[in-house]
Amino acid sequence: MIGVLGGGQLGRMLALAAARLGFDVTVLEPEPDCPASRVCARTLTAPYDDPAALLEMARTCQVVTFEFENVPAPVVEQLQAHDALAAPGRLALATAQDRVTEKTFLRAHGLAVADFAPIATAEDVAAAMARLGPRALLKTRREGYDGKGQTWVEGPRDAEAAFARIGGRPAILEAAVPFVRELSVIAARGWGGEIACYPVGQNIHRDGVLRTTRAPAQVSAATAAQAEAIARTTLQALDYVGVIGVELFELEVGALLVNEFAPRVHNSGHWTLDGCEVDQFEQHVRAICGWPLGPTQPLAAVEMENLLGFEAEQWAKLAADPSARLWLYGKRTAREGRKMGHVNRLKPLG
Amino acid sequence: MIGVLGGGQLGRMLALAAARLGFDVTVLEPEPDCPASRVCARTLTAPYDDPAALLEMARTCQVVTFEFENVPAPVVEQLQAHDALAAPGRLALATAQDRVTEKTFLRAHGLAVADFAPIATAEDVAAAMARLGPRALLKTRREGYDGKGQTWVEGPRDAEAAFARIGGRPAILEAAVPFVRELSVIAARGWGGEIACYPVGQNIHRDGVLRTTRAPAQVSAATAAQAEAIARTTLQALDYVGVIGVELFELEVGALLVNEFAPRVHNSGHWTLDGCEVDQFEQHVRAICGWPLGPTQPLAAVEMENLLGFEAEQWAKLAADPSARLWLYGKRTAREGRKMGHVNRLKPLG
Repeated sequence: MIGVLGGGQLGRMLALAAARLGFDVTVLEPEPDCPASRVCARTLTAPYDDPAALLEMARTCQVVTFEFENVPAPVVEQLQAHDALAAPGRLALATAQDRVTEKTFLRAHGLAVADFAPIATAEDVAAAMARLGPRALLKTRREGYDGKGQTWVEGPRDAEAAFARIGGRPAILEAAVPFVRELSVIAARGWGGEIACYPVGQNIHRDGVLRTTRAPAQVSAATAAQAEAIARTTLQALDYVGVIGVELFELEVGALLVNEFAPRVHNSGHWTLDGCEVDQFEQHVRAICGWPLGPTQPLAAVEMENLLGFEAEQWAKLAADPSARLWLYGKRTAREGRKMGHVNRLKPLG
Repeated sequence: MIGVLGGGQLGRMLALAAARLGFDVTVLEPEPDCPASRVCARTLTAPYDDPAALLEMARTCQVVTFEFENVPAPVVEQLQAHDALAAPGRLALATAQDRVTEKTFLRAHGLAVADFAPIATAEDVAAAMARLGPRALLKTRREGYDGKGQTWVEGPRDAEAAFARIGGRPAILEAAVPFVRELSVIAARGWGGEIACYPVGQNIHRDGVLRTTRAPAQVSAATAAQAEAIARTTLQALDYVGVIGVELFELEVGALLVNEFAPRVHNSGHWTLDGCEVDQFEQHVRAICGWPLGPTQPLAAVEMENLLGFEAEQWAKLAADPSARLWLYGKRTAREGRKMGHVNRLKPLG
């Protein structure tokens, strides 16, 4: 029995991959009738930090994992206090939860990140602008995803208003990065330290939300090797077990900066569902369950497109396209921008 | 919501395919804790002909399908009385449930089958042997699968003993077929009559149980066309909706005889899980839900091997083999000969 905290589409696809390998899954999720609940052996409907639910997870699951990074840190401690195996562990979650901690950690391990400054007050923003340039990105330190909780600061005069726009919360100010492309690398590490990396993907965002991933990305061998080295360093530094998604900026000069990492399976890795023999979800299950990691070479070139909100209503057209592999997440109601499914379009490897 | 009668590995893989496309599944199965129950939205634990369970299936499911052919015929009538859509329908199930009815039906639609005689008594066996040859195969008319409920009759003197060996039940006596290979074809038909056939597979049985399927089978274009024509004729004759498995004997002269058909997804179609973009389970879901049928051309040559009983304990070795795609069914206990999982080994198309 594998425990999964979080019952959205990532938890659902993890449960499907686990089932293929004969495992049962228990999902812990506060929202009733979540997408993963309908494909798993057992669902506990309770807050993530509910002590009784965590005790039950620890008692019945041989390993517990996470669909998202914003699990309260005491949750991992509670699971471990009950002798549950948690993967990835506390260090990865705690580091990913705070953007200042994350960038400091990456830099301390020799990885290049955009220049940044921790922000506590509007005055900090104005002061940091002097160093970080005429335009910089202000993000809350904690939470915020898909472009939420962040805003551009358009010069020192905008400092106070920008700080107000993100709710006046503890934040990070990041220098603008003149990137030419956004890339990501999905990689896995097992309990014995073995590592497997998928080819780099190229990501296209709109309004802060991932729209399209093309993989394998057309990058030089040097860039591919650099991306893999970044993933390896991150996995080893975090003593990580499971699949990680590392988002990268590619600069004109060919250098890579790390934007952030997600200590979980990642939207930009959905192409592997139809592009590789072992996809990121099965790879995560293999890693956390102590199975050998699977092969990561691509079988096809894939363009993954997210279906947001009412775009999923195109299902009939997509299902009729023989080159399109459709995934729908079973969400009851479509909302503007909500991730309802995705489609992988396959082409022969170029 | 899709209803599935039967919660074994076929029901489990149907539920996984349905989940990929965003559907929910309700399983009806008398055995508690069945393999499919752990990957579906809802399980009704009751006999297949339980009126309350069938009413609930009809009330909550938009379409009801079957994991196996031996559903009591009144079940389909009860579902239809409650205005439930059942696919495949009553004709396919009733025909497949009785070997004499099945062979008579196939022959009436111009398809070649082994010569046969209906058997009610031991005297019938002896009399039919005179026509069917010195050695013939005696099978119960109903039930019996994986080689159960059948025996060879070794000459007229064995007639009485043979009839006793199969329990003295209504039976069919089939002429021995001098086949060179056993083949099968997996095909699907939608509500609008559209048909899609997968390439023919070659099957190797041991002790009446399927061990290995190799697909696409090395057959001539004429044999492949003949197999597809047989599948089309059978689907149309049954006014069938869903996936069917048709088992064939290939004779030395290149002719094909139909052995039997299974009105459901079929063990010899498991190769499609890793060998085709749309596997037989997703194809069945597409067919019964009125979706367009998916592509059936092979992406790879596959050797599917069933893992029987304790063979599934090889999982660690199989998981470490990058050319082996492992499927385990989540059955709690291994028994000699029980289907615990299968492995698909992929090679480039030859």
